[in-house]
Amino acid sequence: MKILLIGGTGYGGIELIRLLHHHPLAEVEMMYSSSQAGTDIQDIYPHLQTIVEKPLDTIQITDIKNQVDCVFFATPAGVSKSLLPQFLDHGLRCIDLSGDFRLQSSEKYEAWYKLSAPDEAYVKQAVYGLSEIYPNQIRNASLIANPGCYPTATLLGLLPLLEQQIIDPTTIIIDGKSGVSGAGRSTGLGTHYSEINENLKAYKLGVHQHIPEIEQVLTSFANEEVNVTFTTHLVPMTRGIMCTIYANLQDYKSTQELIDLYKQFYNEHPFVRVRKEGNIPATKEVYGSNFCDIGLYSDPRTGRVTIVSVIDNLVKGAAGQAVQNLNLMNGWDIRTGLLSIPVYP
Amino acid sequence: MKILLIGGTGYGGIELIRLLHHHPLAEVEMMYSSSQAGTDIQDIYPHLQTIVEKPLDTIQITDIKNQVDCVFFATPAGVSKSLLPQFLDHGLRCIDLSGDFRLQSSEKYEAWYKLSAPDEAYVKQAVYGLSEIYPNQIRNASLIANPGCYPTATLLGLLPLLEQQIIDPTTIIIDGKSGVSGAGRSTGLGTHYSEINENLKAYKLGVHQHIPEIEQVLTSFANEEVNVTFTTHLVPMTRGIMCTIYANLQDYKSTQELIDLYKQFYNEHPFVRVRKEGNIPATKEVYGSNFCDIGLYSDPRTGRVTIVSVIDNLVKGAAGQAVQNLNLMNGWDIRTGLLSIPVYP
Amino acid sequence: MKILLIGGTGYGGIELIRLLHHHPLAEVEMMYSSSQAGTDIQDIYPHLQTIVEKPLDTIQITDIKNQVDCVFFATPAGVSKSLLPQFLDHGLRCIDLSGDFRLQSSEKYEAWYKLSAPDEAYVKQAVYGLSEIYPNQIRNASLIANPGCYPTATLLGLLPLLEQQIIDPTTIIIDGKSGVSGAGRSTGLGTHYSEINENLKAYKLGVHQHIPEIEQVLTSFANEEVNVTFTTHLVPMTRGIMCTIYANLQDYKSTQELIDLYKQFYNEHPFVRVRKEGNIPATKEVYGSNFCDIGLYSDPRTGRVTIVSVIDNLVKGAAGQAVQNLNLMNGWDIRTGLLSIPVYP
Amino acid sequence: MKILLIGGTGYGGIELIRLLHHHPLAEVEMMYSSSQAGTDIQDIYPHLQTIVEKPLDTIQITDIKNQVDCVFFATPAGVSKSLLPQFLDHGLRCIDLSGDFRLQSSEKYEAWYKLSAPDEAYVKQAVYGLSEIYPNQIRNASLIANPGCYPTATLLGLLPLLEQQIIDPTTIIIDGKSGVSGAGRSTGLGTHYSEINENLKAYKLGVHQHIPEIEQVLTSFANEEVNVTFTTHLVPMTRGIMCTIYANLQDYKSTQELIDLYKQFYNEHPFVRVRKEGNIPATKEVYGSNFCDIGLYSDPRTGRVTIVSVIDNLVKGAAGQAVQNLNLMNGWDIRTGLLSIPVYP
Repeated sequence: MKILLIGGTGYGGIELIRLLHHHPLAEVEMMYSSSQAGTDIQDIYPHLQTIVEKPLDTIQITDIKNQVDCVFFATPAGVSKSLLPQFLDHGLRCIDLSGDFRLQSSEKYEAWYKLSAPDEAYVKQAVYGLSEIYPNQIRNASLIANPGCYPTATLLGLLPLLEQQIIDPTTIIIDGKSGVSGAGRSTGLGTHYSEINENLKAYKLGVHQHIPEIEQVLTSFANEEVNVTFTTHLVPMTRGIMCTIYANLQDYKSTQELIDLYKQFYNEHPFVRVRKEGNIPATKEVYGSNFCDIGLYSDPRTGRVTIVSVIDNLVKGAAGQAVQNLNLMNGWDIRTGLLSIPVYP
Repeated sequence: MKILLIGGTGYGGIELIRLLHHHPLAEVEMMYSSSQAGTDIQDIYPHLQTIVEKPLDTIQITDIKNQVDCVFFATPAGVSKSLLPQFLDHGLRCIDLSGDFRLQSSEKYEAWYKLSAPDEAYVKQAVYGLSEIYPNQIRNASLIANPGCYPTATLLGLLPLLEQQIIDPTTIIIDGKSGVSGAGRSTGLGTHYSEINENLKAYKLGVHQHIPEIEQVLTSFANEEVNVTFTTHLVPMTRGIMCTIYANLQDYKSTQELIDLYKQFYNEHPFVRVRKEGNIPATKEVYGSNFCDIGLYSDPRTGRVTIVSVIDNLVKGAAGQAVQNLNLMNGWDIRTGLLSIPVYP
Repeated sequence: MKILLIGGTGYGGIELIRLLHHHPLAEVEMMYSSSQAGTDIQDIYPHLQTIVEKPLDTIQITDIKNQVDCVFFATPAGVSKSLLPQFLDHGLRCIDLSGDFRLQSSEKYEAWYKLSAPDEAYVKQAVYGLSEIYPNQIRNASLIANPGCYPTATLLGLLPLLEQQIIDPTTIIIDGKSGVSGAGRSTGLGTHYSEINENLKAYKLGVHQHIPEIEQVLTSFANEEVNVTFTTHLVPMTRGIMCTIYANLQDYKSTQELIDLYKQFYNEHPFVRVRKEGNIPATKEVYGSNFCDIGLYSDPRTGRVTIVSVIDNLVKGAAGQAVQNLNLMNGWDIRTGLLSIPVYP
Repeated sequence: MKILLIGGTGYGGIELIRLLHHHPLAEVEMMYSSSQAGTDIQDIYPHLQTIVEKPLDTIQITDIKNQVDCVFFATPAGVSKSLLPQFLDHGLRCIDLSGDFRLQSSEKYEAWYKLSAPDEAYVKQAVYGLSEIYPNQIRNASLIANPGCYPTATLLGLLPLLEQQIIDPTTIIIDGKSGVSGAGRSTGLGTHYSEINENLKAYKLGVHQHIPEIEQVLTSFANEEVNVTFTTHLVPMTRGIMCTIYANLQDYKSTQELIDLYKQFYNEHPFVRVRKEGNIPATKEVYGSNFCDIGLYSDPRTGRVTIVSVIDNLVKGAAGQAVQNLNLMNGWDIRTGLLSIPVYP
């Protein structure tokens, strides 16, 4: 299986290169870059020297069908919506790591992304690639809208409770915390070391583009329109997302009862690891890996559950889940190329 | 004003030394330490060399009244409850940075601290030293129970809304995030660099001893028993606390309306800085200073307010507030010795 | 004493604002900024809110003599060389934190800075503001070329040995290590959090513009032209410089003998603290302060001395030394406004 | 190939577990721990949950020959010297990650380690496991003394020049910088987060136990006894070692000439990557991988070379090199299980 990677010079792109290098059944055949075409990838990223040495090419669509089998887009918001349909029309399966095809509603895309919406015909084809939740749809999809990092951690943390109507969907609050690599490699004060180190910031209160993405899935699982409070924080670390999620229990259930329910829900899903009572996951415990680790605490004093869900934002929150979806689409074991142990410490 | 400092070798203790060194009206005259008596403070902390060079003495109570005017306790939980009454009985005013005298209920102290409760007679004398909220009681107090770091950030963030019954007290959720210095200088895996760096952990879910402290004050401001959900996280940074606080508005008010209300509430209080709309404080913006900065966001979609309250845990969350209380107790301008600019970046 | 600050929005500039705020005899009266004129400083730096609230003005020279007494330049290389002479000609004393007037040789300035050299007439007027070494010249200067951060740490570490011909000047190797704030607030991959965090880089090998600055002073103290090996490293921290300096001893002297010599050399200089044997300073032990701490180790096995010299690059390495020079120029106690305790931890 | 791992609960031990998990020809069959026998490894390290779930056993030697083929010691200094001979006598090949068998001189071991020396008979059997330098001896060895982290980076950086007598061996200075994981998982102020974060320390000046290890190898390559100046620094990061090495060139050679020589020297060695001119490696560029990246700068002004050598201290500096040696000992391709891409960023 030969892969074309578009946008190989961002953090999502090089994480795809890292993961696919270990993948026995797929390999990156070509890389396109609009900004750095003509450069060799190892000159931008010296850590790749002697391992992956390839030129970045300008984007070309003609005859691509003869050269590759699948296209990954690791491009900023607004790029794949115009580019991806051309590859799809040439018969190539596409996995888009950006947010362009995640929202089914054009109005919401335009309201939250502040960009004109993609063509609805393609949006309708897109399957939301939350691997554990939509495996059957993913298997048959031509266009995967790979989920955002915060939505992945949030939805895997919430869906077991929402599906069984154990929590009140009007009470969901998500306190998200992310490492800085989630902001990508573009430079600015928001990623400037001296501004971020030894500092903790909240950002984009009430306007984060992952809000409608989370709500779209939650609404489809509840019997009502779900609106969430979602706050994001920038933590002085490179990798890792933790979502601390709060909701009121409809009827009180103990921590152990909830854990049993999660273990049941994720019984067949090796990348979701539910912790035992008293054991709450930390982000480093999934570092560099495709795991989503979940810890639970049910508080009898308040009748509220606290869910702690952690992922590596560049792996399960981006490139790893994309490879997991590639595995699904090809009928391979979903673990193929993804079973490395987290790098600890 | 001569100060006796007990427990000078922890982080709270040396922060008191730093702040009092700049104070024109008070100075550290003596330092007691049980663990390191006989050592000079500059041998433990070389940064003090040539500035503060003093021996640490063993604890003695006789004749102390002739030598100092006030005693600060920067000791671990469980120490001051037996030691402080002796100094108080000798007529010395005491400021306790530990949690021993904060909880009015012996049952709660024993349940949350897992220690036997202090003598109720002394607990009743104790004034909770949240400087902006109880200035009159503090002025006349002999025994100050200096607030915890998380409670300071939380209560300053919540009380303007709770007092005016703008929020529903049954819906309060506090997502607390702290730097590692809050855990003190004692060693263990929980403060081990390689375990904490590039990592984010939640800890003490549902059992943090600051829960009853927060609830005690909130309950006194509401017309009902208040129980809160309070989750604490360890952030890979040394200093700083952020509490992100959520509550349902009884009736919707805009962000600007809430800001106006906070500005009114803290009008006379120079250490609380309320940010303007769209401006959310980061922990580094109060680094090394006694400020508590507060930002607000009111979400019309969910009818919920998000309050972001930040302090330096060692200053406003400990030593700085203790000095502010010293100023109050002596009728000095509360800003005395405390008006330094945050160290940025 | 009224100060005009030019370039108030960089890290050198806000550190001057912080230090001068605590200074009893001088205050920042006006701030000029070319890039951000019209903005208020507290809108760029929210940590200054309620403490320093001032507009940034466009640069104007007419009538400035009636409004301020002294001008500080906290501007990038290449700015003050054309701007400063105009203020000097209006009779204002100037302190330049940039490198423009440090090198007496125009050829060297042009070779190392890759910029056209400043007017030699002004270069000749400039006094190199290494406070401990040139106090008399500084007292009478109109134009201070405030030393670079690495040269300050290096020269204070080396001069006691070089002056007494204890080391062989042909063997000097300086291994410099700096926090990221030394690179300023401008954005780029070199200050991007995800590239710098959990990483250690060497940079500018053999071409750092501080090499000729160091050599100029060393040469004036030796009886020969001195060339040094100087390597700089970027350490994942915000503040702090450590220079680890190596040189061959002409005749072996023990660590204690060298310490005695340093203590003698810096006897009258409160900001240089020489550590006792076995005690090597760490950068945090001078954090936020104007101290330069020096530790020594003389190795009988190799006949070589290792000198460890640490400063806070933004204080003793920039703004603090500038204030120290202001104190010298005005006949004030050099400690005025500068005696705060390092912020630890 | 079944492996017995002794000391599985330290950072060297879990890194072995991580690397061997990816190894197609070897697996960890048993783990012994003196301190935590009876516990399951995943209860100490939750990141291993569902991947490696095994009990830690008490140390037993009888019948071990029937159960495993090779023993790895990831134990603190002083443990393997008494334990390892028993396994060796039972016919098991042993790889020791500690320093016990690295020094051929008992006097030096006792002087630098402050411990009684191991039995000389076993010391003589030990092969120093610097894979690129001693591959033939390693292939036939029964007892591998796996090199220390600093010596690995230093020796790979220096030997090409020393072997060809290009540098003067009396002028070698090594400025070493390490992340904190090198200090292991034991707790103390030296690994306390608040003491290390945003700080840079030099430590063990003149007394580091890696000095005799480095000198032993250098001496064997030079025609004279070599003594080096070696200074170690603790950098606020978890993983990574950089050694910045200085030496005088016997006759001047350009940077490019030196690079050519290194490329020739390491031509057959895939884990040493020599950078091209102007490209100096950073520690993150080898993060989590078995690479040693080397950059060079030859200074015509001083006639001195600067060598920058970086490794991941837990991989090439410990567990990775141990696996590389296992590959050599078994005649496998040395890359087996070790060719993962560095985790970047």
